[in-house]
Amino acid sequence: MINVVKIGGNVINDPEALGSFLRDFASLKGRKALVHGGGKEATRLSAALGIETTMIEGRRVTDAATVDVVTMVYAGLVNKRIVSRLQALGCDALGLSGADGNVIPATRRSPVPVDFGFVGDIDSARVDDSLIASLIERGIVPVFCAICHDGDGNLLNCNADSVAAAVAEACARIAPTRLTYCFEKPGVMRDIEDESSVIPSIDEKSFLTLKEGGIIADGMVPKLTNALKSARAGVAEVRICRASDLAGEGGTVITI
Amino acid sequence: MINVVKIGGNVINDPEALGSFLRDFASLKGRKALVHGGGKEATRLSAALGIETTMIEGRRVTDAATVDVVTMVYAGLVNKRIVSRLQALGCDALGLSGADGNVIPATRRSPVPVDFGFVGDIDSARVDDSLIASLIERGIVPVFCAICHDGDGNLLNCNADSVAAAVAEACARIAPTRLTYCFEKPGVMRDIEDESSVIPSIDEKSFLTLKEGGIIADGMVPKLTNALKSARAGVAEVRICRASDLAGEGGTVITI
Repeated sequence: MINVVKIGGNVINDPEALGSFLRDFASLKGRKALVHGGGKEATRLSAALGIETTMIEGRRVTDAATVDVVTMVYAGLVNKRIVSRLQALGCDALGLSGADGNVIPATRRSPVPVDFGFVGDIDSARVDDSLIASLIERGIVPVFCAICHDGDGNLLNCNADSVAAAVAEACARIAPTRLTYCFEKPGVMRDIEDESSVIPSIDEKSFLTLKEGGIIADGMVPKLTNALKSARAGVAEVRICRASDLAGEGGTVITI
Repeated sequence: MINVVKIGGNVINDPEALGSFLRDFASLKGRKALVHGGGKEATRLSAALGIETTMIEGRRVTDAATVDVVTMVYAGLVNKRIVSRLQALGCDALGLSGADGNVIPATRRSPVPVDFGFVGDIDSARVDDSLIASLIERGIVPVFCAICHDGDGNLLNCNADSVAAAVAEACARIAPTRLTYCFEKPGVMRDIEDESSVIPSIDEKSFLTLKEGGIIADGMVPKLTNALKSARAGVAEVRICRASDLAGEGGTVITI
């Protein structure tokens, strides 16, 4: 079994929560990979540099100055901090952007209807599972940020949930794979104010019903769309849970 | 033969010179690795963030805020720009800091007599030649920045010339290796104002004479000390030359 774990931006912004999560991740037995977001630090750096942050539908509009900022923060600061801390925990982490070894090629998103600038979409079938396999077989733990490239020398800001899905789908071509989305909430909740309202499992049919009923909305829609896509693409288990429950079994399991 | 090439900061700051250098590097046949500096961009980012840059003996004093800046610039912006551009040139580049895969462990420099902060020194015998070999054997071209780590979760700012020397010495344990230091000058010059005064070759003995005579001074002393150390450690050929002469034979050859 290969464990692919995604850790969300809000945990990364909290040093104590991140430290605790990295200890749990380092303790996971066997082959594994980590994918991280890192939102707030990029917004903070943009602000300090006088670069305006524009979000449309939860997505960062990434002009030339902003792609430099997210490359510095995600591929530089956040990625290397995580790698050095995992190394200190005895976990042989190695950080990668999608450009490194062309492991996750992306395509710049069409400027129509919305021009997001240097934002990319990933075709998970093009992810280089043979490079990932060769690293994992050496005992290395790849740590991915969500900066990819277009193959023409341009870096692209991609969605970290989509990177996690693409990495898990590539790993599923190597060996049975479990994908766990970790964030600050206990799972997908019926009532966002009530942490006891976690939905234990969601399949394609119940997803549609929950979406139509407005129970699943906003950022949870693309997260679940990604999760269902991964389940369809052969990822054996997909779960959305609280970061502190990485080693547990709580949260929401997504099945097809 | 493995070609290890170091590209200096001033070429990185000049987009046209960098583009031309990367085309030449991508054209080099066979197994290779690149090591890059990246000085000015870090000073610029520090200034924009109101962080004062202090240099002592040409070395950046690296406090906690500054190690974040150099990690963002060297491991993030510069490294991923170079990787994505090499990928566009058909060169299968993969960026690494010393923390990644613990490939280049470093030791934080003693705060006595000068406290440089998060600055590290490299013991080239501890560089993981087996990881470098496994990447190179796959046809991958490792691209190293000079950010390393202490194994306790702290990132360290290291000297890019020393990283190049350490990588070349590790490669020399795999196969015969050529180390080329590329920068904006035509080589080591007798008269810094006269580009026709390049010294074609320097050995240990002539180095001492040139240093005592004040002909080799400032930043050239550690560069040559590193170059001689690599030659002693088994690197078959060490050369210092203009970036545009990478494929040529000009510049200064260092022998023991």
